[in-house]
Amino acid sequence: MRRAPVDPAEPAAIAPAVAAAIAHARRYRERFLAELADFVRFPSVSADPRHAADVVACARWLASHLRGLGATEVRIVPTARHPVVHAAWRRATGQPTVLIYGHYDVVSADPLEAWRSSPFEATRRGESLYGRGTSDDKGQLFAHLKALEAFLRTSGALPINVACLFDGEEEIGSPSLGALLASQRRAFEADVAVVSDTPILGPGRPALTYALRGLLSLEARVAGPRHDLHSGRFGGAVHNPAQVLCDLVSSLHDASGRVAVAGFYDRVRPAHEAERAAIARTGPTDAQVRREAGVDEAWGEPGYTLFERMTLRPALSVNGLAGGHAGPGPKTVIPASARTKLSVRLVPDQDPEEIADLLKEHFERLAPATVRVAIVSDTAVRPFLADRDHPELPVALEAYRKGFGAVPAFLRAGGSIPAVRMLQDVLGRSPLLMGFALPDDGMHGPNERLHLPTFWSAIETSIWLLAGLARSF
Amino acid sequence: MRRAPVDPAEPAAIAPAVAAAIAHARRYRERFLAELADFVRFPSVSADPRHAADVVACARWLASHLRGLGATEVRIVPTARHPVVHAAWRRATGQPTVLIYGHYDVVSADPLEAWRSSPFEATRRGESLYGRGTSDDKGQLFAHLKALEAFLRTSGALPINVACLFDGEEEIGSPSLGALLASQRRAFEADVAVVSDTPILGPGRPALTYALRGLLSLEARVAGPRHDLHSGRFGGAVHNPAQVLCDLVSSLHDASGRVAVAGFYDRVRPAHEAERAAIARTGPTDAQVRREAGVDEAWGEPGYTLFERMTLRPALSVNGLAGGHAGPGPKTVIPASARTKLSVRLVPDQDPEEIADLLKEHFERLAPATVRVAIVSDTAVRPFLADRDHPELPVALEAYRKGFGAVPAFLRAGGSIPAVRMLQDVLGRSPLLMGFALPDDGMHGPNERLHLPTFWSAIETSIWLLAGLARSF
Repeated sequence: MRRAPVDPAEPAAIAPAVAAAIAHARRYRERFLAELADFVRFPSVSADPRHAADVVACARWLASHLRGLGATEVRIVPTARHPVVHAAWRRATGQPTVLIYGHYDVVSADPLEAWRSSPFEATRRGESLYGRGTSDDKGQLFAHLKALEAFLRTSGALPINVACLFDGEEEIGSPSLGALLASQRRAFEADVAVVSDTPILGPGRPALTYALRGLLSLEARVAGPRHDLHSGRFGGAVHNPAQVLCDLVSSLHDASGRVAVAGFYDRVRPAHEAERAAIARTGPTDAQVRREAGVDEAWGEPGYTLFERMTLRPALSVNGLAGGHAGPGPKTVIPASARTKLSVRLVPDQDPEEIADLLKEHFERLAPATVRVAIVSDTAVRPFLADRDHPELPVALEAYRKGFGAVPAFLRAGGSIPAVRMLQDVLGRSPLLMGFALPDDGMHGPNERLHLPTFWSAIETSIWLLAGLARSF
Repeated sequence: MRRAPVDPAEPAAIAPAVAAAIAHARRYRERFLAELADFVRFPSVSADPRHAADVVACARWLASHLRGLGATEVRIVPTARHPVVHAAWRRATGQPTVLIYGHYDVVSADPLEAWRSSPFEATRRGESLYGRGTSDDKGQLFAHLKALEAFLRTSGALPINVACLFDGEEEIGSPSLGALLASQRRAFEADVAVVSDTPILGPGRPALTYALRGLLSLEARVAGPRHDLHSGRFGGAVHNPAQVLCDLVSSLHDASGRVAVAGFYDRVRPAHEAERAAIARTGPTDAQVRREAGVDEAWGEPGYTLFERMTLRPALSVNGLAGGHAGPGPKTVIPASARTKLSVRLVPDQDPEEIADLLKEHFERLAPATVRVAIVSDTAVRPFLADRDHPELPVALEAYRKGFGAVPAFLRAGGSIPAVRMLQDVLGRSPLLMGFALPDDGMHGPNERLHLPTFWSAIETSIWLLAGLARSF
């Protein structure tokens, strides 16, 4: 399927600045990887308060790197939790401004024992660089920085104005971002925003994302006796909170794989047949999804392909279970409590608050009087659909085509990026979702990796994008 | 209900040796507590391989303490895992031998944050000594040692021959004990065995245990994708192992509270109406059980009182759940696997191996093809019923009556003591189960405690028992 990236020396219309930038990007690949490894070294795990200082240290490194590239404004903007890194180059008079959004925070690397190499020591094996964040999202963010460097170190200037917004809270739902964007509109003003935090179809198969699922994450707790009880003594007479938790979690799906919470599908927009046909043509097949997921048999809502289940349809996932004794050997207790972390991926026109209420009602209806059930909702992100008539869409597609040497597809993505809806609201226009991750990069799992040929194409795509967005081009 | 313990100086028939022993036991109470605190200091958590050295250190302390008391044979007997401490005094020619069984291992102190004081620093508050093992079983075991000391330090001899068998693996099902008893019959030969590891009815309300439930502990694991997946990307298309685990656990009970595993109750002996009437008279009421358990509403198999559900009837408990992300904040993954620790309390004539097979069949029948389900059974202990015509029963009852100043009750216990059935097999006679724990001692939970007035009564009960078992008395 793959063709070679476009050679900048070939077509006559390519400006010398782009040719020089691409030559620079190709020349310093090894150094870029060493710098990315420095970036990966910070365990900037935003969800874990124990890593708060690492998040700040990572923000400082990123700000320092931006200063080194020649950014004219670089700030570490404090928030209630983790800082935003803001940078800008605004010297391209008369040119538009592009806002580049990415996030430098990562999810935890647990379970550590599943990693072949240390998650925060980026390690090259074969054509990939392994480490937490290499793909999600430090590597994708870094591709843009290296595109900026390529122009600044060769032409001494950028073809357009650029603002950067690097989030330290994406993986916890970007709780501070909305208020920051509202209070500092000037700093993040832009004509177009680019977000690179989504998968493409495969090596050499770029894809522009036009839809994201929303996200609702919750924690449900079941509490019973005041403290753990000896299960020999009390087993049979005390309702076991871990058992009740399992009853509740089990009640969330019916046997067919549909979510069994009353009203859950009420606001789900039925899929257009034309879109389903397009997904069938361009999206991954069931076999590809199974391979990327590493499972022999798939599962889910009847009547939809696997990719549709992952993108067009909502889904409810159990992210974690905990309660009682799970350490080595037996310990026969009735645990005092048990809990689960749940997340729901939402599609238009589902509303996170409404779904949270439906889940709470569901649990309240089913919770037995023998225990106490509490639900706390955490992240809430609305689903996203891109503007169909985005004026910069042709530029984005052309940049992908030149960077990857292949015509990009249009894809829905199953994940959620809280910033996208916020940026859409602030800019009055949907961001361009130009992802550079591969479907099997292992985002959020162990042995996360960055596919290096894709990374090189990503840098060149960003160079072509910056050039393409310049009115003077 | 409570009467004062019998004053040894009062009845004419009491031998001076007993009077002296009891005086000694009353005089050195504070020292006994300091010694018990030393014993508790060892985190002899048998289930956790990281505590293996602590278990050995605790065995050494116990052996050294036994030597200090004047035991003539003291050995630390290695096993495949944790050692047995064996001691004996065999100088009472013509007298019978009593085997005292107890265990010096403990269950883990997790969750540590639920303890008011450090679990391995025995701490006195009010009338109780708090610490892991103070009740289960270091304190109960230690009551016998102090009774031995009381005779040896006053009369210089014991009224009968004594062998001690202190187990380091009780909390993991005593896996080494059967082979040890078989290979070292001589060392543990005895006319009668006493086991103190069961609850009585309350302060001043002693109770001899005549039945124990058996135990089967298992771990069930559900494995799905090869590694954790991003639940945004794959949510809806991959069967979630944590969700499947909850489905399986939830399937183990019906809505009424009965175990829903086919064949589970087939071999359960129906309760005699006479026994149920006796339980209704002497056993704890539902209100007492609820108070001891610290719950407002009870639960379980219909048609039985709470105490019957805890003793006469089998029970299946979820001891723990683990899988995916349960740490701070969200981490949206489909976990690669999830697991649960289960334990089943068995009653006559249920057989652990047969019940393990039924559970495996149950899981195999329900396990979907999308995941892999594995069950590993761990501890297996058969249920126990005492001989009704035990010749030493009157002595045991009389010792309790004198030690506690109250006529003891006969009780079933809901827990399991693997050694009891083994000792019954080796000695050809059931051990006397003379427990000294209170129902609300918090065994296996946080803030485990020893009720000191009960501990003093336990020491005196042991003195009366040793004296009563002597033929010369």
